[in-house]
Amino acid sequence: MPHIALPEGLPGILGPMTFRPETAKPLNELAEVLLRGDSSLTRGERELIASRVSERNDCHFCCSSHSAFAAFQLDGGYDVVDAVLADPASAPVSPKLRALLALADQVQESGLSVTEEAVAAARAEGATDVEIHDAVLIAAAFCMFNRYVDGLATIAPPAREDYAEMGQLIVDRGYAASTPVSPDA
Amino acid sequence: MPHIALPEGLPGILGPMTFRPETAKPLNELAEVLLRGDSSLTRGERELIASRVSERNDCHFCCSSHSAFAAFQLDGGYDVVDAVLADPASAPVSPKLRALLALADQVQESGLSVTEEAVAAARAEGATDVEIHDAVLIAAAFCMFNRYVDGLATIAPPAREDYAEMGQLIVDRGYAASTPVSPDA
Repeated sequence: MPHIALPEGLPGILGPMTFRPETAKPLNELAEVLLRGDSSLTRGERELIASRVSERNDCHFCCSSHSAFAAFQLDGGYDVVDAVLADPASAPVSPKLRALLALADQVQESGLSVTEEAVAAARAEGATDVEIHDAVLIAAAFCMFNRYVDGLATIAPPAREDYAEMGQLIVDRGYAASTPVSPDA
Repeated sequence: MPHIALPEGLPGILGPMTFRPETAKPLNELAEVLLRGDSSLTRGERELIASRVSERNDCHFCCSSHSAFAAFQLDGGYDVVDAVLADPASAPVSPKLRALLALADQVQESGLSVTEEAVAAARAEGATDVEIHDAVLIAAAFCMFNRYVDGLATIAPPAREDYAEMGQLIVDRGYAASTPVSPDA
Protein backbone atom coordinates (compact mmCIF):
# COMPACT_ATOMS: atom_id res chain seq x y z
CA MET A 1 0.00 0.00 0.00
CA PRO A 2 1.39 3.43 -0.84
CA HIS A 3 2.71 5.52 2.05
CA ILE A 4 0.33 8.41 1.25
CA ALA A 5 -3.25 8.55 -0.07
CA LEU A 6 -2.71 8.40 -3.82
CA PRO A 7 -5.49 8.24 -6.44
CA GLU A 8 -6.52 4.61 -6.77
CA GLY A 9 -5.98 2.37 -9.76
CA LEU A 10 -2.93 4.20 -11.09
CA PRO A 11 0.25 2.12 -11.01
CA GLY A 12 3.75 3.37 -10.26
CA ILE A 13 4.60 6.98 -10.95
CA LEU A 14 1.13 7.73 -12.34
CA GLY A 15 -0.29 7.91 -8.80
CA PRO A 16 2.06 10.57 -7.39
CA MET A 17 2.03 12.45 -10.70
CA THR A 18 -1.75 12.71 -10.55
CA PHE A 19 -1.59 13.58 -6.83
CA ARG A 20 0.85 16.45 -7.47
CA PRO A 21 0.46 17.80 -11.04
CA GLU A 22 2.66 20.83 -10.27
CA THR A 23 5.72 18.59 -10.04
CA ALA A 24 4.47 16.11 -12.67
CA LYS A 25 4.73 18.80 -15.34
CA PRO A 26 8.52 19.37 -15.22
CA LEU A 27 9.12 15.65 -14.53
CA ASN A 28 7.26 14.68 -17.71
CA GLU A 29 8.97 17.45 -19.68
CA LEU A 30 12.36 16.19 -18.52
CA ALA A 31 11.50 12.62 -19.58
CA GLU A 32 10.16 13.85 -22.92
CA VAL A 33 13.28 15.91 -23.79
CA LEU A 34 15.77 13.32 -22.53
CA LEU A 35 14.17 10.14 -23.85
CA ARG A 36 12.22 11.32 -26.91
CA GLY A 37 13.58 14.73 -27.93
CA ASP A 38 16.03 15.35 -30.77
CA SER A 39 19.11 13.20 -30.25
CA SER A 40 21.71 11.19 -32.13
CA LEU A 41 20.81 8.31 -29.79
CA THR A 42 17.61 6.52 -30.80
CA ARG A 43 14.62 6.51 -28.48
CA GLY A 44 15.07 2.79 -27.96
CA GLU A 45 18.74 3.25 -27.00
CA ARG A 46 17.88 5.94 -24.46
CA GLU A 47 15.10 3.82 -22.95
CA LEU A 48 17.62 0.98 -22.54
CA ILE A 49 19.73 3.23 -20.32
CA ALA A 50 16.62 4.07 -18.25
CA SER A 51 15.68 0.41 -17.97
CA ARG A 52 19.18 -0.68 -16.97
CA VAL A 53 19.53 1.95 -14.23
CA SER A 54 16.07 1.12 -12.89
CA GLU A 55 17.02 -2.56 -12.72
CA ARG A 56 20.12 -1.69 -10.72
CA ASN A 57 17.99 0.36 -8.34
CA ASP A 58 15.58 -2.61 -8.00
CA CYS A 59 12.68 -0.43 -9.16
CA HIS A 60 10.24 -2.94 -10.63
CA PHE A 61 7.76 -0.41 -12.01
CA CYS A 62 10.33 1.79 -13.76
CA CYS A 63 12.33 -1.15 -15.06
CA SER A 64 9.23 -2.89 -16.40
CA SER A 65 7.77 0.20 -18.02
CA HIS A 66 10.98 1.49 -19.59
CA SER A 67 11.85 -2.04 -20.71
CA ALA A 68 8.53 -2.00 -22.60
CA PHE A 69 9.27 1.45 -24.06
CA ALA A 70 12.70 0.18 -25.14
CA ALA A 71 11.48 -3.15 -26.53
CA PHE A 72 8.74 -1.46 -28.57
CA GLN A 73 11.26 0.91 -30.19
CA LEU A 74 14.21 -1.41 -30.82
CA ASP A 75 14.98 -3.97 -33.49
CA GLY A 76 15.30 -7.12 -31.43
CA GLY A 77 12.72 -6.04 -28.85
CA TYR A 78 12.79 -7.76 -25.47
CA ASP A 79 15.72 -9.99 -26.47
CA VAL A 80 17.95 -6.92 -26.54
CA VAL A 81 16.43 -5.52 -23.35
CA ASP A 82 16.97 -8.77 -21.46
CA ALA A 83 20.57 -8.97 -22.64
CA VAL A 84 21.26 -5.41 -21.44
CA LEU A 85 19.63 -6.08 -18.09
CA ALA A 86 21.74 -9.20 -17.65
CA ASP A 87 25.08 -7.79 -18.83
CA PRO A 88 25.56 -4.69 -20.97
CA ALA A 89 29.15 -5.65 -21.79
CA SER A 90 28.01 -8.67 -23.82
CA ALA A 91 24.66 -7.32 -25.06
CA PRO A 92 23.97 -7.09 -28.81
CA VAL A 93 24.05 -3.29 -28.95
CA SER A 94 26.51 -0.92 -30.63
CA PRO A 95 29.95 -0.54 -28.98
CA LYS A 96 29.08 3.12 -28.37
CA LEU A 97 25.87 2.28 -26.49
CA ARG A 98 27.72 -0.43 -24.57
CA ALA A 99 30.21 2.19 -23.38
CA LEU A 100 27.43 4.62 -22.46
CA LEU A 101 25.68 1.87 -20.49
CA ALA A 102 28.90 1.27 -18.56
CA LEU A 103 29.00 4.99 -17.78
CA ALA A 104 25.36 4.85 -16.64
CA ASP A 105 26.19 2.00 -14.28
CA GLN A 106 28.84 4.19 -12.65
CA VAL A 107 26.41 7.12 -12.33
CA GLN A 108 23.86 4.81 -10.68
CA GLU A 109 26.42 4.09 -7.98
CA SER A 110 27.41 7.75 -7.46
CA GLY A 111 28.37 10.76 -9.54
CA LEU A 112 31.80 10.49 -7.96
CA SER A 113 32.16 6.91 -9.26
CA VAL A 114 32.38 8.04 -12.89
CA THR A 115 35.91 7.51 -14.17
CA GLU A 116 37.88 9.33 -16.84
CA GLU A 117 38.56 5.91 -18.33
CA ALA A 118 34.84 5.18 -18.81
CA VAL A 119 34.31 8.57 -20.45
CA ALA A 120 37.36 8.06 -22.68
CA ALA A 121 36.09 4.60 -23.65
CA ALA A 122 32.75 6.07 -24.71
CA ARG A 123 34.49 8.78 -26.69
CA ALA A 124 36.73 6.18 -28.37
CA GLU A 125 33.57 4.45 -29.60
CA GLY A 126 32.35 7.68 -31.15
CA ALA A 127 30.22 9.15 -28.36
CA THR A 128 29.88 12.93 -28.57
CA ASP A 129 29.86 15.32 -25.62
CA VAL A 130 26.08 15.65 -25.90
CA GLU A 131 25.66 11.87 -25.90
CA ILE A 132 27.90 11.55 -22.83
CA HIS A 133 25.98 14.38 -21.15
CA ASP A 134 22.64 12.77 -21.93
CA ALA A 135 23.70 9.31 -20.78
CA VAL A 136 24.85 10.78 -17.46
CA LEU A 137 21.65 12.79 -17.03
CA ILE A 138 19.36 9.87 -18.01
CA ALA A 139 21.11 7.66 -15.45
CA ALA A 140 20.93 10.42 -12.82
CA ALA A 141 17.26 11.12 -13.58
CA PHE A 142 16.34 7.47 -13.07
CA CYS A 143 18.06 7.55 -9.69
CA MET A 144 15.39 10.18 -8.97
CA PHE A 145 12.40 8.53 -10.65
CA ASN A 146 13.19 5.16 -9.02
CA ARG A 147 13.40 6.70 -5.55
CA TYR A 148 10.21 8.68 -6.14
CA VAL A 149 8.26 5.58 -7.19
CA ASP A 150 9.55 3.25 -4.45
CA GLY A 151 10.01 5.90 -1.75
CA LEU A 152 6.22 6.33 -1.79
CA ALA A 153 5.65 2.55 -2.01
CA THR A 154 3.55 2.79 -5.16
CA ILE A 155 1.95 -0.29 -6.69
CA ALA A 156 3.85 -2.08 -9.47
CA PRO A 157 1.97 -4.59 -11.64
CA PRO A 158 4.01 -7.82 -11.64
CA ALA A 159 3.99 -9.12 -15.23
CA ARG A 160 5.62 -7.90 -18.41
CA GLU A 161 2.29 -7.93 -20.26
CA ASP A 162 0.83 -5.56 -17.66
CA TYR A 163 3.02 -2.85 -19.20
CA ALA A 164 2.07 -3.35 -22.84
CA GLU A 165 -0.80 -0.87 -23.01
CA MET A 166 1.07 1.92 -21.24
CA GLY A 167 4.10 1.13 -23.37
CA GLN A 168 2.17 1.64 -26.58
CA LEU A 169 0.67 4.90 -25.26
CA ILE A 170 4.07 6.36 -24.44
CA VAL A 171 5.56 5.22 -27.74
CA ASP A 172 2.64 6.73 -29.68
CA ARG A 173 1.99 9.91 -27.73
CA GLY A 174 4.90 10.64 -25.40
CA TYR A 175 5.29 11.34 -21.70
CA ALA A 176 3.11 14.42 -21.49
CA ALA A 177 0.10 12.23 -22.44
CA SER A 178 0.66 9.86 -19.55
CA THR A 179 -0.69 12.07 -16.76
CA PRO A 180 -3.57 14.50 -16.35
CA VAL A 181 -3.03 18.03 -17.50
CA SER A 182 -1.52 20.29 -14.87
CA PRO A 183 -3.86 23.05 -13.62
CA ASP A 184 -1.55 25.72 -14.98
CA ALA A 185 -0.67 23.97 -18.27
CA MET B 1 38.44 19.16 -15.25
CA PRO B 2 34.92 18.37 -16.44
CA HIS B 3 34.49 15.17 -18.49
CA ILE B 4 33.00 17.09 -21.43
CA ALA B 5 33.68 20.53 -22.93
CA LEU B 6 31.46 22.77 -20.80
CA PRO B 7 31.30 26.57 -21.05
CA GLU B 8 34.14 27.98 -18.96
CA GLY B 9 33.85 29.90 -15.71
CA LEU B 10 30.50 28.43 -14.68
CA PRO B 11 30.68 26.34 -11.50
CA GLY B 12 28.73 23.19 -10.76
CA ILE B 13 25.40 22.62 -12.46
CA LEU B 14 25.56 25.97 -14.28
CA GLY B 15 28.01 24.51 -16.82
CA PRO B 16 25.89 21.54 -17.98
CA MET B 17 22.72 23.64 -17.79
CA THR B 18 24.22 26.20 -20.14
CA PHE B 19 25.61 23.42 -22.36
CA ARG B 20 22.17 21.79 -22.68
CA PRO B 21 19.38 24.37 -22.19
CA GLU B 22 16.74 21.92 -23.41
CA THR B 23 17.15 19.83 -20.26
CA ALA B 24 17.97 22.83 -18.04
CA LYS B 25 14.47 24.20 -18.53
CA PRO B 26 12.53 21.34 -16.87
CA LEU B 27 15.30 20.86 -14.28
CA ASN B 28 15.01 24.49 -13.18
CA GLU B 29 11.21 24.30 -13.24
CA LEU B 30 11.33 21.24 -11.01
CA ALA B 31 13.64 23.00 -8.53
CA GLU B 32 11.47 26.12 -8.58
CA VAL B 33 8.20 24.25 -7.87
CA LEU B 34 9.69 21.92 -5.27
CA LEU B 35 11.90 24.34 -3.36
CA ARG B 36 10.19 27.71 -3.86
CA GLY B 37 6.59 27.04 -4.99
CA ASP B 38 3.53 27.19 -2.74
CA SER B 39 4.03 24.87 0.22
CA SER B 40 3.33 24.57 3.93
CA LEU B 41 7.08 23.92 4.34
CA THR B 42 9.14 27.11 4.27
CA ARG B 43 11.72 27.65 1.53
CA GLY B 44 14.47 27.39 4.11
CA GLU B 45 13.14 24.06 5.39
CA ARG B 46 13.00 22.60 1.89
CA GLU B 47 16.53 23.80 1.12
CA LEU B 48 17.71 22.06 4.30
CA ILE B 49 16.46 18.74 2.90
CA ALA B 50 18.32 19.44 -0.38
CA SER B 51 21.49 20.35 1.50
CA ARG B 52 21.34 17.29 3.76
CA VAL B 53 20.85 14.82 0.87
CA SER B 54 23.66 16.48 -1.10
CA GLU B 55 25.98 16.11 1.90
CA ARG B 56 25.17 12.42 2.12
CA ASN B 57 25.92 12.06 -1.60
CA ASP B 58 29.24 13.90 -1.06
CA CYS B 59 28.29 16.51 -3.65
CA HIS B 60 30.28 19.54 -2.60
CA PHE B 61 28.76 21.97 -5.10
CA CYS B 62 25.10 21.10 -4.37
CA CYS B 63 25.64 20.90 -0.63
CA SER B 64 27.46 24.26 -0.54
CA SER B 65 24.96 26.05 -2.75
CA HIS B 66 21.80 24.69 -1.11
CA SER B 67 23.33 25.26 2.32
CA ALA B 68 23.65 28.92 1.32
CA PHE B 69 20.07 29.01 0.00
CA ALA B 70 18.90 27.44 3.29
CA ALA B 71 21.02 29.66 5.55
CA PHE B 72 19.85 32.84 3.80
CA GLN B 73 16.19 31.87 4.30
CA LEU B 74 16.24 30.48 7.86
CA ASP B 75 16.26 32.08 11.26
CA GLY B 76 19.51 30.78 12.69
CA GLY B 77 21.27 30.73 9.32
CA TYR B 78 24.35 28.53 8.99
CA ASP B 79 24.16 27.40 12.63
CA VAL B 80 20.97 25.50 11.78
CA VAL B 81 22.40 24.22 8.49
CA ASP B 82 25.55 22.91 10.19
CA ALA B 83 23.50 21.17 12.87
CA VAL B 84 21.34 19.44 10.24
CA LEU B 85 24.39 18.38 8.24
CA ALA B 86 25.98 16.92 11.38
CA ASP B 87 22.89 15.17 12.82
CA PRO B 88 19.27 15.98 11.93
CA ALA B 89 17.97 14.09 14.96
CA SER B 90 19.48 16.64 17.35
CA ALA B 91 19.26 19.73 15.13
CA PRO B 92 17.28 22.80 16.31
CA VAL B 93 14.47 22.39 13.78
CA SER B 94 10.80 21.51 14.29
CA PRO B 95 9.98 17.88 15.20
CA LYS B 96 8.09 17.64 11.88
CA LEU B 97 11.08 18.73 9.84
CA ARG B 98 13.31 16.42 11.85
CA ALA B 99 11.05 13.51 10.88
CA LEU B 100 11.01 14.58 7.22
CA LEU B 101 14.82 14.78 7.23
CA ALA B 102 14.96 11.21 8.57
CA LEU B 103 12.69 10.17 5.69
CA ALA B 104 14.97 11.98 3.22
CA ASP B 105 17.97 10.10 4.60
CA GLN B 106 16.19 6.83 3.79
CA VAL B 107 15.32 8.00 0.27
CA GLN B 108 18.96 8.95 -0.31
CA GLU B 109 19.91 5.34 0.37
CA SER B 110 17.17 3.85 -1.84
CA GLY B 111 13.44 4.24 -2.43
CA LEU B 112 13.07 0.74 -1.04
CA SER B 113 14.76 1.80 2.22
CA VAL B 114 11.83 4.00 3.22
CA THR B 115 10.00 2.43 6.16
CA GLU B 116 6.36 2.67 7.22
CA GLU B 117 7.67 3.62 10.66
CA ALA B 118 9.51 6.68 9.31
CA VAL B 119 6.40 7.79 7.42
CA ALA B 120 4.22 7.23 10.49
CA ALA B 121 6.69 9.20 12.62
CA ALA B 122 6.46 12.16 10.23
CA ARG B 123 2.68 11.96 10.25
CA ALA B 124 2.66 11.82 14.06
CA GLU B 125 4.55 15.13 14.07
CA GLY B 126 1.89 16.69 11.87
CA ALA B 127 3.30 16.12 8.37
CA THR B 128 0.63 16.07 5.65
CA ASP B 129 0.59 13.76 2.64
CA VAL B 130 1.79 16.61 0.43
CA GLU B 131 4.67 17.35 2.80
CA ILE B 132 5.66 13.68 2.86
CA HIS B 133 5.39 13.55 -0.94
CA ASP B 134 7.51 16.65 -1.33
CA ALA B 135 10.17 15.51 1.14
CA VAL B 136 10.50 12.23 -0.79
CA LEU B 137 10.66 13.99 -4.15
CA ILE B 138 13.16 16.62 -2.96
CA ALA B 139 15.42 13.86 -1.64
CA ALA B 140 15.00 11.86 -4.86
CA ALA B 141 15.63 14.92 -7.04
CA PHE B 142 18.91 15.65 -5.27
CA CYS B 143 20.01 12.09 -5.91
CA MET B 144 19.67 13.18 -9.56
CA PHE B 145 21.17 16.67 -9.32
CA ASN B 146 24.15 15.39 -7.28
CA ARG B 147 24.90 12.65 -9.83
CA TYR B 148 24.51 15.10 -12.71
CA VAL B 149 26.95 17.58 -11.18
CA ASP B 150 29.59 15.06 -10.10
CA GLY B 151 29.03 12.54 -12.92
CA LEU B 152 30.30 15.22 -15.31
CA ALA B 153 33.10 16.24 -12.91
CA THR B 154 32.06 19.88 -12.81
CA ILE B 155 34.09 22.44 -10.89
CA ALA B 156 33.02 23.22 -7.29
CA PRO B 157 34.41 26.35 -5.61
CA PRO B 158 35.83 25.30 -2.25
CA ALA B 159 34.77 27.92 0.29
CA ARG B 160 31.43 28.80 1.82
CA GLU B 161 31.81 32.45 0.84
CA ASP B 162 32.20 31.43 -2.81
CA TYR B 163 28.47 30.61 -2.78
CA ALA B 164 27.20 33.87 -1.26
CA GLU B 165 26.57 35.75 -4.49
CA MET B 166 24.76 32.85 -6.20
CA GLY B 167 22.85 32.26 -2.98
CA GLN B 168 21.53 35.81 -2.95
CA LEU B 169 20.57 35.58 -6.64
CA ILE B 170 18.54 32.40 -6.12
CA VAL B 171 16.87 33.76 -2.99
CA ASP B 172 15.96 36.99 -4.77
CA ARG B 173 15.06 35.74 -8.23
CA GLY B 174 14.59 31.97 -8.19
CA TYR B 175 16.00 29.05 -10.14
CA ALA B 176 14.85 30.10 -13.58
CA ALA B 177 17.13 33.15 -13.31
CA SER B 178 20.24 31.05 -12.69
CA THR B 179 20.75 29.83 -16.25
CA PRO B 180 20.50 31.30 -19.72
CA VAL B 181 17.12 31.30 -21.39
CA SER B 182 16.40 28.13 -23.32
CA PRO B 183 16.17 28.57 -27.11
CA ASP B 184 12.51 27.56 -27.07
CA ALA B 185 11.52 29.41 -23.89
